[in-house]
Amino acid sequence: TLGEALPRPEGESFLPAFRCAGGLIWAAMAAAPEKPLRVQLEAEANRWAVVFYVHQALRAFRAGNSREFREFRRVITAVLARPVTLEEPTRIQLRVIQILSRLEEDWTTDSETELTHLENVLVLLEKFRYEFKINVEIIEELKRRIKEAAVVTCIKNKEYEHASKILNKHMSQDPNCKQMTAILNHIIQKRKPPHPAICQFSYKAFQQRVLLAFESYLDDSEPFLLVMAKKHCNKRLKSPAGAATKEKMAVSGAAQEAPETSGTASGERAGKLSKAPEAR
Amino acid sequence: TLGEALPRPEGESFLPAFRCAGGLIWAAMAAAPEKPLRVQLEAEANRWAVVFYVHQALRAFRAGNSREFREFRRVITAVLARPVTLEEPTRIQLRVIQILSRLEEDWTTDSETELTHLENVLVLLEKFRYEFKINVEIIEELKRRIKEAAVVTCIKNKEYEHASKILNKHMSQDPNCKQMTAILNHIIQKRKPPHPAICQFSYKAFQQRVLLAFESYLDDSEPFLLVMAKKHCNKRLKSPAGAATKEKMAVSGAAQEAPETSGTASGERAGKLSKAPEAR
Repeated sequence: TLGEALPRPEGESFLPAFRCAGGLIWAAMAAAPEKPLRVQLEAEANRWAVVFYVHQALRAFRAGNSREFREFRRVITAVLARPVTLEEPTRIQLRVIQILSRLEEDWTTDSETELTHLENVLVLLEKFRYEFKINVEIIEELKRRIKEAAVVTCIKNKEYEHASKILNKHMSQDPNCKQMTAILNHIIQKRKPPHPAICQFSYKAFQQRVLLAFESYLDDSEPFLLVMAKKHCNKRLKSPAGAATKEKMAVSGAAQEAPETSGTASGERAGKLSKAPEAR
Repeated sequence: TLGEALPRPEGESFLPAFRCAGGLIWAAMAAAPEKPLRVQLEAEANRWAVVFYVHQALRAFRAGNSREFREFRRVITAVLARPVTLEEPTRIQLRVIQILSRLEEDWTTDSETELTHLENVLVLLEKFRYEFKINVEIIEELKRRIKEAAVVTCIKNKEYEHASKILNKHMSQDPNCKQMTAILNHIIQKRKPPHPAICQFSYKAFQQRVLLAFESYLDDSEPFLLVMAKKHCNKRLKSPAGAATKEKMAVSGAAQEAPETSGTASGERAGKLSKAPEAR
């Protein structure tokens, strides 16, 4: 399930949020029809929230904004503790966010007793491939890039022993890593960080390349909440005078339509909204 | 501002969530018109989310469900770290949730260096009264009830010294607490917990009485997200056959209307939704 491994954002290392969340997702999916109406209604709103914040988190990661990415992840984690039924596009996005979260962590620390962050990412990639029938070559290529990044990061931080450990454990057996393994091994032996393979390495660029590899699997339709927010902002812009007076009014024409599908609207649809006649 | 004191839910004692959140709320309120469209749109969706989860948190507290109350509070805290513009009814609800959160904490622990949980609640009540022009008698009555509850809880836990400290510091000067102070003082001196004033005290009932005192200040209109969720569930119930096939469809008739006001719809309006014709 989605929840077996934790995203463990910084400062929240012991929060078992995605773990229980995953359990709840699947529990909710299995038992949804028998749930009381109140829970069904909350689950519906939770789904819109998850779809929206997942979309925002991916946008933040694309923009290289780690702080925003973490903030959105915290919202997602909190909402996932509640009952929610998620469809495949959102489950894929969540798994990708989970993998990207690991790329924000410190790989140079080592632990003998549990899986390292690097190993966690590799496990997550395997799960992702298996759950969503992702092309095996894409996953293998990503694993190679991630292992390389882990070794290079260690070398950059002059943690040669740890770099050597990762190299021996994860790269030396892989025939596709042969050339890179040799280069990195040489650098580690000579304790020579100013090698171009090290100097030219940008962790930010590496993170973006990982995301790029996932892009074709990511649903880019507009979340329902974003479509609604656009509609609302358009209305306000068209009638700035009315904005103040309606503050305390009850809703009159609100909520005529609920989305037919699951918290996302096609981009095309969203584009049309700006041309829609004002319904007042 | 809203954020000067923390709700400090259990297990998150050092998360400065409401603190920075409060700052952001006011920052967003002041600067909203100049913000880029992307931020304005997110703020709109954030507001719907806050309004919905605040409503859910209060429902959970009314139902005596501490776990749910905490879960919703975590979502609210996470969303409040993002830009959001909140109107007065929501700010009142947030302040009440903050006060209710303190009633979930352990008052029997003592700290010499900082404000105790009890003192924090009293400070929050003062802020609440000042910010929203709440009737001073209601606040004073609440303060008395809360001080009593703190002393009684200490006696129940046989922490007589701490009980005596609270009694002397917070109750002995208040002429309206005279009778209760005398009774509690007697119990403390005799170390006699099986007194009716102690045995009959129910913390759950006390919590509900505090909430009851706030009810007239709390907006009970339905959050926009809940109205939308009802609409959506109604549609699905009317066409159960269509539910499966439309899973992967793009949105067609979705999001025709955004709410005119601020994330809530009147209860009356919500009632009408179930009679609305199906728009397909």
